[in-house]
Amino acid sequence: MANEYQLILDNICRYISLTDEEKQIFTALLTRRSLKRGEFLLTEGMICRYSAFVLSGCLFGYSIDRDAAEHIVSFAPPDWWIADMYSLISQQPSTMNIRAHEASEILLLSRADQEKLFIAIPKFERFFRILTEKSLVANQQRLIDNLSLSAEERYKNFTLRYPTLVHHLPQKQIAAYIGVTPEFFSKMKSKLS
Amino acid sequence: MANEYQLILDNICRYISLTDEEKQIFTALLTRRSLKRGEFLLTEGMICRYSAFVLSGCLFGYSIDRDAAEHIVSFAPPDWWIADMYSLISQQPSTMNIRAHEASEILLLSRADQEKLFIAIPKFERFFRILTEKSLVANQQRLIDNLSLSAEERYKNFTLRYPTLVHHLPQKQIAAYIGVTPEFFSKMKSKLS
Repeated sequence: MANEYQLILDNICRYISLTDEEKQIFTALLTRRSLKRGEFLLTEGMICRYSAFVLSGCLFGYSIDRDAAEHIVSFAPPDWWIADMYSLISQQPSTMNIRAHEASEILLLSRADQEKLFIAIPKFERFFRILTEKSLVANQQRLIDNLSLSAEERYKNFTLRYPTLVHHLPQKQIAAYIGVTPEFFSKMKSKLS
Repeated sequence: MANEYQLILDNICRYISLTDEEKQIFTALLTRRSLKRGEFLLTEGMICRYSAFVLSGCLFGYSIDRDAAEHIVSFAPPDWWIADMYSLISQQPSTMNIRAHEASEILLLSRADQEKLFIAIPKFERFFRILTEKSLVANQQRLIDNLSLSAEERYKNFTLRYPTLVHHLPQKQIAAYIGVTPEFFSKMKSKLS
């Protein structure tokens, strides 16, 4: 068990301690899935039924505006969780898409199994309370940054938030996260370096 | 104790069960405060240190845009919680104001005491996990409604969300929540009735 689940258990044990038995109860609820490059985990209009934890590869969540422009909401490299939290909690149709940027391995926890987990091991309430808080803060921070920061400052925040992705993602995707055109982004980077 | 704290204990016991001793530990952490009509509980730029639970009166949270227009984010009649959750969790400066619409009585729980509560009575993790989830969903739903619903549909959602406030608040405030001018709101209501 140790190898396959070590990353997710380490992630959880940053906030709560688990006994070996509790680790087994938890990991028995997880489903492993492989995604091909470009494959969708969630599409707009579907109800989000799973939280995904990334083992390898990289996922990203994005929405499409009225002018068909893609806005990247979040990236999820290894050791990150990703879901449309709004849809997962409310069970209303999702307003975003989640897709694999490259071939990825993920672990899925369904909302129904999450509820079972809360009953079986109440300590998980703490873990998911903190995860929900972080998600709420990140959503709000993105809104504030988009309203108040320059593109350069937003790029700096991206590099702080996702240090492993700076040299890993194509410029087009970083530009879609920062909210500028690839051309503008390319000029900005030349200026910065 | 029963009378003063009955409303907040009933609110909590919708999600978790508490023994008499646990109720006493919890209520000992609360501070009661009276707000005059128009008084501020939080102003933009301050750090939000408290969750407020409304016993009587009504509070509202709002932000001011670049054109000095007031956008009401949420109302809190009796039996509702209100805070700038983003600021409370991240301890970053608040992006909204919270103010009493009329003379109000509230109970305050500080973020520091909330952390103590989680240690003393871990069941509160569940209560605040659910409260945080509801807050995240409500924020997102407001964004979606503002982008996708007509003013009439947004008014209908307001009446469903706050049935006690429909005849209680001045039209100007309901208009600021729906995101229309008072003049437009007045015409819309005549048309609807």
